[in-house]
Amino acid sequence: MPGIITLTTDFGLKDPYQAAVKGAILSVNPAVRIVDISHLVRPGNILEGALILRDAAPYFPDKTVHVAVVDPGVGGGRRPVLIETKRYFFIGPDNGLLLPAASSDGIKKVVHLTDSKYFRKDVSPTFHGRDIFGPAAAHISHGADPALFGKIIKKTVTIKMPAVRAGGGAVKGRVVYTDTFGNLITNIGKAALRRHFGGRGVEVSVKGVSIKGLSKTYSDVKKGAVAAVIGSTGFLEIAVNRGSAAADLCALAEESVTVRAL
Amino acid sequence: MPGIITLTTDFGLKDPYQAAVKGAILSVNPAVRIVDISHLVRPGNILEGALILRDAAPYFPDKTVHVAVVDPGVGGGRRPVLIETKRYFFIGPDNGLLLPAASSDGIKKVVHLTDSKYFRKDVSPTFHGRDIFGPAAAHISHGADPALFGKIIKKTVTIKMPAVRAGGGAVKGRVVYTDTFGNLITNIGKAALRRHFGGRGVEVSVKGVSIKGLSKTYSDVKKGAVAAVIGSTGFLEIAVNRGSAAADLCALAEESVTVRAL
Amino acid sequence: MPGIITLTTDFGLKDPYQAAVKGAILSVNPAVRIVDISHLVRPGNILEGALILRDAAPYFPDKTVHVAVVDPGVGGGRRPVLIETKRYFFIGPDNGLLLPAASSDGIKKVVHLTDSKYFRKDVSPTFHGRDIFGPAAAHISHGADPALFGKIIKKTVTIKMPAVRAGGGAVKGRVVYTDTFGNLITNIGKAALRRHFGGRGVEVSVKGVSIKGLSKTYSDVKKGAVAAVIGSTGFLEIAVNRGSAAADLCALAEESVTVRAL
Repeated sequence: MPGIITLTTDFGLKDPYQAAVKGAILSVNPAVRIVDISHLVRPGNILEGALILRDAAPYFPDKTVHVAVVDPGVGGGRRPVLIETKRYFFIGPDNGLLLPAASSDGIKKVVHLTDSKYFRKDVSPTFHGRDIFGPAAAHISHGADPALFGKIIKKTVTIKMPAVRAGGGAVKGRVVYTDTFGNLITNIGKAALRRHFGGRGVEVSVKGVSIKGLSKTYSDVKKGAVAAVIGSTGFLEIAVNRGSAAADLCALAEESVTVRAL
Repeated sequence: MPGIITLTTDFGLKDPYQAAVKGAILSVNPAVRIVDISHLVRPGNILEGALILRDAAPYFPDKTVHVAVVDPGVGGGRRPVLIETKRYFFIGPDNGLLLPAASSDGIKKVVHLTDSKYFRKDVSPTFHGRDIFGPAAAHISHGADPALFGKIIKKTVTIKMPAVRAGGGAVKGRVVYTDTFGNLITNIGKAALRRHFGGRGVEVSVKGVSIKGLSKTYSDVKKGAVAAVIGSTGFLEIAVNRGSAAADLCALAEESVTVRAL
Repeated sequence: MPGIITLTTDFGLKDPYQAAVKGAILSVNPAVRIVDISHLVRPGNILEGALILRDAAPYFPDKTVHVAVVDPGVGGGRRPVLIETKRYFFIGPDNGLLLPAASSDGIKKVVHLTDSKYFRKDVSPTFHGRDIFGPAAAHISHGADPALFGKIIKKTVTIKMPAVRAGGGAVKGRVVYTDTFGNLITNIGKAALRRHFGGRGVEVSVKGVSIKGLSKTYSDVKKGAVAAVIGSTGFLEIAVNRGSAAADLCALAEESVTVRAL
């Protein structure tokens, strides 16, 4: 069975680490197809890794095994886990990293990875990506039954996702991710906007700038102008046509964003 | 049919975007092989993307599907297109990005991608890479007939490639790309040099520096010396042996370069 | 035969070079699986490339073909070589780059690549990765006999690896690699430590900081504290829990490190 394994880590692309994980995977299942989601999560930034995984995972075929490793507590008390969801498997540390992606697909069960039969023979206490998560994913991609890997866990570590607040006719959220283009992606989803404002026009405020109305795409506004759009994963984002909203608005990583009815 | 799809974008390697494109491709054709040409084109820089694609594409096997997305006008008026050439298929926005690579292979026909049967079910107005170009490429890699995707287009958007001028015994061009090694790659091809200078020796001038004669390779000159060579894709380039011509000559992105007979 | 080819280069990820190598490989063996070890070796830094290759190669399945190209002398006098080891094939320039990885696997024979039947038809003097090493690797992955590629070489170019010195009850080495996390990886292996100190506790000194005892993993010390651990490839490394040892200790690239008995 070929199967697909994706990787989301903070290992970077220069060091030998991401390749060592791939070697360990291919040593178990030489036919599996490995796709990098990202290795450029900022070191130890679990929330950033969780958001990147959440926004890439759902576009993969059913049965894809998503491995994610942003794991500052490697080798310590945190548990290695496998989460089976409606369409996928997620494998990584039980530190909240997998939760947003797994929850939005629908969690079926969580297994504590303890059976060393599915690990590399020598497990380094500092590199579970290579020695536990990668090999376990390769066995799953081969069709192994998750129940064989360890006991079912009832309670997993959650991640504090920044909250959206509504009140006084306004919806308030914040920027949670700034992408390569300088687009400011918020935690305000299109469902929240529909619930609070229905079909009415809205005004989006960020860094003292007010944007009247949502645009369908970046180029709906003039070159250099600020636009508010519903981005490709369903969240409100602030962009500058042919520019960088992050640079042009001097926006910080967690800038607050307010939406009101026009 | 496995097939090969390449990707050339300005999506960067940190964000979930390039992976979402791959997921969308694999959802249509799970057997296709995906190769990254580059995701580090400078955001919105169509000429840079066009040059990178042109210099990597011809080394791939026949029938490879080259997808390129540097697309500041996404979701606006520009058309999504498929270009069938002698050996390849090119898919992306009709903004000139595909032209240099497609022209040098020999364009057979251009199709306006309009049949949504070959798209993802929900097309985001800001992410045609994932929702239109990727899936269309996957269908082509599967053997679908380009004629089914939409109407044939007679006129495509061209890209202004910087011109080479000859006169007064000199050939004048400019630096069009600076690579990782700091090599300054010009738009002066070996055919132009042969046409103007035949087998005679030449002198290359850039930034007030004169380089007498072409070297076969970088290490033909002393360590730290400037060399002019015909680079691996057939264009004149200026290099410093074990150094960076860009840094050592303080060369700007579009520095002019003159070639005269010795 | 599918087979696996890995790539370790200083080509970067923006330029068309790494993709051109892949295209050239797939043109010979369309079924081979290509895995990037790293394209971010610092330009021309042979030692850095050698260390990255050495630390990733051993995790791949038997018969993997490891191609490495950090090749400032390309097209000059240095020879293109193929090294057959106990489990692998290594292909690249004979400048020491392949030696640490090949030696630790056990060299069986070294072949000078001279038979142009296994090259691309036109060999550029500045791009042997695309025109010699890639195609040769593809032929090897297809099952070609190394003996057909050229004559056996008895003496190869070696690389000066930084030495570990023991004396006066101390073992002295240095930092040889700083990773993405800011971990300082030394050339002091766990075998050397065992030989000199047996089971006794040790004290590690670097940049005037003394670390008493080895930790099993980073999170064994308090957040922000310095830890000495045996890293995932068996070498002593200095790390800061949830921080960067490189930044926090202002450590330079080749900082010296001393180990004494406690």
